[in-house]
Formats: sequence, C-alpha cells, structure tokens
Amino acid sequence: MKKASIISIGNEVLSGQTIDTNAAYLSSKLLSNGIPVVSSYTVGDDIDSIVRALKLAGDDADVILVTGGLGPTDDDLTRQAFAKFLGVELQLQDELLRKIQDFFTSRALRMPEINKVQAYIPAGADALANSTGTAPGIMAKTMGKLFTAMPGVPSEMKQMFDELVLPKLSKFTTGQAVVVRKLKCFGTGESNIATLLGELMQRGRNPLINCTVHYGIITLHIIATAKEKSDAREMAEKDEKLLTKLLGKLVYGTGEQTLAEVVGEKLAQQNKTVAVAESCTGGAVAKLLTDVPGASRYFTHGWVTYSNTAKTAELGVPAELIEKHGAVSEQVAGAMAKGARERSGADFAIGTTGIAGPTGGSEQKPVGLVYISVSSANEHETKRFVIPGDRNFIRLRAAQTVLNMLRLKS
Amino acid sequence: MKKASIISIGNEVLSGQTIDTNAAYLSSKLLSNGIPVVSSYTVGDDIDSIVRALKLAGDDADVILVTGGLGPTDDDLTRQAFAKFLGVELQLQDELLRKIQDFFTSRALRMPEINKVQAYIPAGADALANSTGTAPGIMAKTMGKLFTAMPGVPSEMKQMFDELVLPKLSKFTTGQAVVVRKLKCFGTGESNIATLLGELMQRGRNPLINCTVHYGIITLHIIATAKEKSDAREMAEKDEKLLTKLLGKLVYGTGEQTLAEVVGEKLAQQNKTVAVAESCTGGAVAKLLTDVPGASRYFTHGWVTYSNTAKTAELGVPAELIEKHGAVSEQVAGAMAKGARERSGADFAIGTTGIAGPTGGSEQKPVGLVYISVSSANEHETKRFVIPGDRNFIRLRAAQTVLNMLRLKS
Repeated sequence: MKKASIISIGNEVLSGQTIDTNAAYLSSKLLSNGIPVVSSYTVGDDIDSIVRALKLAGDDADVILVTGGLGPTDDDLTRQAFAKFLGVELQLQDELLRKIQDFFTSRALRMPEINKVQAYIPAGADALANSTGTAPGIMAKTMGKLFTAMPGVPSEMKQMFDELVLPKLSKFTTGQAVVVRKLKCFGTGESNIATLLGELMQRGRNPLINCTVHYGIITLHIIATAKEKSDAREMAEKDEKLLTKLLGKLVYGTGEQTLAEVVGEKLAQQNKTVAVAESCTGGAVAKLLTDVPGASRYFTHGWVTYSNTAKTAELGVPAELIEKHGAVSEQVAGAMAKGARERSGADFAIGTTGIAGPTGGSEQKPVGLVYISVSSANEHETKRFVIPGDRNFIRLRAAQTVLNMLRLKS
Repeated sequence: MKKASIISIGNEVLSGQTIDTNAAYLSSKLLSNGIPVVSSYTVGDDIDSIVRALKLAGDDADVILVTGGLGPTDDDLTRQAFAKFLGVELQLQDELLRKIQDFFTSRALRMPEINKVQAYIPAGADALANSTGTAPGIMAKTMGKLFTAMPGVPSEMKQMFDELVLPKLSKFTTGQAVVVRKLKCFGTGESNIATLLGELMQRGRNPLINCTVHYGIITLHIIATAKEKSDAREMAEKDEKLLTKLLGKLVYGTGEQTLAEVVGEKLAQQNKTVAVAESCTGGAVAKLLTDVPGASRYFTHGWVTYSNTAKTAELGVPAELIEKHGAVSEQVAGAMAKGARERSGADFAIGTTGIAGPTGGSEQKPVGLVYISVSSANEHETKRFVIPGDRNFIRLRAAQTVLNMLRLKS
C-alpha cells in the first residue's frame, strides 16, 4: 500500500498563530483514496529545516505533500528548499509569470515586483496552476516518490489538491484499498452513540468505526480495508446500512453533507419554502441555509430581530407578549415564527430566541436557554433547550438544532 | 535560548478525523514564555514511530512536549514508547492507581480493569496528576532535556500544562524573554503590506515581523526577543507604534480583536445603531456583528432578503429598479441600505448584493461581484468589489468588507 507524509511549513503554524487545518484536510482526503498518512511534520520558514523534513518524509512515505511557504515574501522558502532537496536550480518560467501578471491585470492592478519570485520553479519540476491566488504549486518525482508543494492558504490548497494533485495520485497508487464512508448524525451525544453501537465500535474491527463531534454534529467514519476496492466498498456499505438501521432518525446524511444541504434538498424536492426569524442566533441560521449554492430556490426571507422593537415592527410580535413573558420565552419564539410565516408566505417558518451569554442569564433563564419554534400550515411546535458551552457554541449549536427540527418536520 | 518541539500522537490526528488544536495551544503558550517551538511531529499509535519522533525532537530542542496516547486502551502506546526511549521498564505506582480508582469512586463507578494500565510510569520518571481525567502525564529529564507526555484530550492537556508543566518550564529556562504583539489590518493584500513595510519584515530582524491572512484579515505579529522582559516589551511597543503609523487606516485593531468588535465598540461609544440588509452575504454580516457579546446595544434590525419579493416587500426596493438594473447592481444595493435605514431608524444601514457562485455568473457580472452600500443621514456610498475564491470565501470576505466600510464611516 502506498503511504503519504505531510509537511506543513510556516512560522505562523509553528508559533501557534494559525491552526493547521490543511493537514487534517489532506489526511482525510488521502485516506478516502486508499493512501494512509503515516507521519506529519511541521517546520518553520527555514531552508535547512524544510530540506530535513523532505528527507524524513521521503523515508516514511511514497507521496509527500507540502503546504505553505510559497508566498512572495522573503520568508517564503519552500521553492528554494525544494530546489536544494532536488539538487537543482530555480528557473524562471515565462508562462507562469504571465499567469501571475494576468491575475493582477484582471483585477485592474499592477503586479508588485516581489510577486515575480513566484514564477520560479525548480528545474525539471512541474508547476501546478493556482486558479484562486498567485502562488503556483510544485510537483516533482524523484527516487520513485512524488513530492508536491501547495500554497498554505486553505482555499487555494484545497482547489489545487482536488483538481490537480488527486487525479495524479490515483494513477500512482496500487495494492491495498481503503474505503471510507461517513454517516452524519444529529440529536444525541457521543456516549449514547457508543452505547447504541456497542461492539461495532471496537478497535481492531474491520471496518473500523470512529466517531467525531463538531457543534453537535456527530460523524461516524466507517473505514473498511481489503485487497480489492470492490470488497472494501462492499464491507463499508454493509456497515453503513447496519448503522443507519440502528441509529434511525439520528442519521441525517452521509459523506460531507451538512444539515443545511439535507434540509435544502428536502425543501427543493417538495417545492416548499422557508423563512427564518432569528434573535439569539443572530443570522447564523440564515447563513447556514445560504451557505448552500442554490438556496434561493427555497430560502426567501430572513429577519434578525435583535431588538424588541424589531420583533414587533417587522414580525408583528405583540409588545404585551414580550412584556408579559420576556423576549426569551416560548410565546415570543412562537409569535416570531408565526409572524415570519405570515409576512413571507413561506411554507415553513422558524423563530429563535435565547440567551447566548456570557451575561444576561438568571436562575430561571440561564445562559444557554434557547426556544426554537417551527411553524407550518398544519403544525406549530416550540421546543426549549439548554445548551452548555460558550456564546459561540450556544449560537451555532442552536442554529444546527433549528435545521434538525426543520429536517424532521419537512 | 531554550527551544521546544511538539509531538502529537494518535491515528485519529494522522487520519484527519481530529484537527490538532493542542499543538497550536502549546506553541502559542511556549512562545509567550520565551520558548519558541522549532519543530512539530505527528505520528500514529506505534511504539517505534513514537520513539523515533522522541529522538528527532530531542535533537531539535530542549523541551519536548508529547500529547496523546495515554488512554487505557491497547492502542495507547505513549507510556511504552517513553520507557523504550528512556531505556527503562514501566513500573506500577500504587499512589497513582489509588488516584485513578478515586476518580471512578467519586463518580459512584467502579474502575474498569483496563484503566489499571494508566498507573504504570517509566522507572525514574515523574507522574503528573490529571485533575479532570484518568490519564496521568509523564515527565522525565534525560541528557539535560525535559520530556513530557500529556493526555490528548484538549481540556485535560491544557489544565495539566498550565498547572504542572509551565511552572516547571519557567525554572528550566533562563535568560531570554519574548513579547508578541499583534496588529490587525484590513483593506489590502499581503504583498502590499510587505511593500509598505519593506525592510521591517526582513528575516533575522529583531523584533521579527510575521504576516498571516485569514478572509482578508491580515495579522502582523511583532515578536521581540531580549534578555529582560521589559526590554522585549519596549521593543515590541516601539514597533507597534511605527507600524501603526506606516499602515495608517489599514490597521483596525490589536491583539485578538475582530473587525466586528472594533465596529461595535465605535458604535457603542458614539451611541449609534446599525441595521443590515443582506442578499449575497445571507446573514453572515448579522452573524459576525452578533458574535460579539452585548451587540444588542447597537445592532437592532437585520434582513436577509434573498428573493426579489423580499427586497421589495421588506425594504421597499422598487420592483422596476430590480427589473432595470438586476438584483445584483449598485442601484439595488443602495436601495436596500436606504430601505433598511428608513425601516429601522438606525444611524447606519448597509446593503449587500452579489453573486457568491459557484453558478449564476456572467461576463458582465462574474461570480465574486459584490456591491456593498453604506447609508447614513449625511452620506450614501456604494462600492463594487470582485472577490476571487469559492462561495464560502466570497461571502465571508464580503461580510468582513462590510464591517470595514462601516469602521471607516463610523
């Protein structure tokens, strides 16, 4: 089985100023393509350190992926380190220079002189086009191993990896097949999932079942290993079915699906629309829904009625209702949802009100208290939640809970 | 100067299922305590790989911090690897066993047999108490270097590091102090910053000035090193003033400040309010503003008018205007901002409309085209941007641009 090693370059990663999400992205993508990552190195912007890491990674693995250090400034040294490691000179590639100049020209800007350095590539290596930034990547084969350098900016790295590197890798690998399936769940905790699945989650089992949690979204990774891809796929699919049955409605999707995508798909299929009226979530529900391309098919209206005046003026929530029960109450959440549905004419409308903290809580209405209301022509339901955590967690978890309620209703 | 190296252990980190936030936490803490991290390794749950990483890290640095692999299950091998690296046996520590048993007893549970393994520590090494979990840490001195192992669970790791490891380190290190200051900028690119700062960004300079970018937000790290903390602080502060002068209005804040915090503070101080009318940003501006605790002091109303109907009905944007210029136009952005200001009575109102993609672009109106309008009693301005990148990047960068325009107006 081919193996991979990852090198992250940059003082900002080493000093903790940037959390390295690139390594996790690459690891997960490589694993799903049957190439497990066996080691990962982080080094600063220093030629000798990068060269040493390239040697170590080359000892560990067949595919070596480097991110970072391709920018235009003096502290970006990956180009030089690659050249030193390969024992060649850097060469100016005219076509690359034109592309970088075009990048600026198309934005009505002049290329700063320092960007010229990005058009230099180690002799004999290939340049990888960067469709969203100025830093081209580098790909070189040596000693039967594939060394690739990509920009450190996550969006540029992802695009380059998915479009240019991954297609090359599939030709490069043979032997063992790993198939990874993911089940996405919402509505319970990690330990409950472990109890429900019991021995299925035992270490050493094949497929291996792993569990990670992010703002209440539980991802179950089913990792099947076999000699043949078809066998691994069959094993993974069998487990996927079994787990889906065991977990029932807790499972909302597969792969990389988000709750917003699943809800959006359901709404679009049924030709239904949704409007949202948010207080404590402050626009987070609208943002999650509109993160999905094409959301305009089902998402029409959103209100962020943060003040009581806005709740009354924009959604028709009676001032007396707020006075009597408080802005954070079952009644106000319900009135917001109803108001949003009437004003927008949408099939579904939701209302959120709560206390995201850190201050503003009381014994009766603690920080983390959130009311979520879903209103449709036939049904009107308001639920009460108390979400533990900080302001950011409470708001995002509440927004995901809104989407989950919408999923179960629509 | 003493240096540090970090080793993260665990198949879940290597496979990308877990993003390694421990390394960033430790790096940043170590740097502020005058111990820069010079390398970082990630290896799987495998004794030989861990031993090799311990050797490499020991070559690089004086302080070696390991996280992960201290759990009770078979795949937790950090204890064994430490013993092998040190050339000693694992020994059962009775007091440690009692502590682990107490952990369960105090929760009315019986200790599972497998947890007993956590009471074994390499002979001659010290155990570090874990106040929030069952896995004790390990600390050993060898060849004048300090090797420490801590649990991988971030909350347990942080507590152990802050309470037990850091106090030891301050005795271990002498001589050098590092002070880090951060300047936050918005409104230009990294290469322009480099041009503006010129030689100030040269490698090897003290203070060292580093630059990182995140959705258009540029963070300049000023890292000053001196024998005495007071000298380092003075050097950092001097540079901070110099850079602030050179960059002028590009600098919006310091430290960990977000644009939303700075805008919010300005508005609150002036007793002014803001309302937002969003189309392409889909709630992202409202979310950023309300991420800040106490945003209700200045943020009152938000609209996410995703459909043309909503733009007309909620904000009074004339249907003919949309018909004539298209929903993505300077005119509609302006009408949205004006409508939002009239409806809300806020001092400032903003309107956003654009094409976030991936589809819907044309030659005249490409993906990434965004109009942002800011309206106040005295002034009305609409700006046109073309933001390169994917949907997520375009939306978030646009939302930050809104906040920046608001900062410069308020």
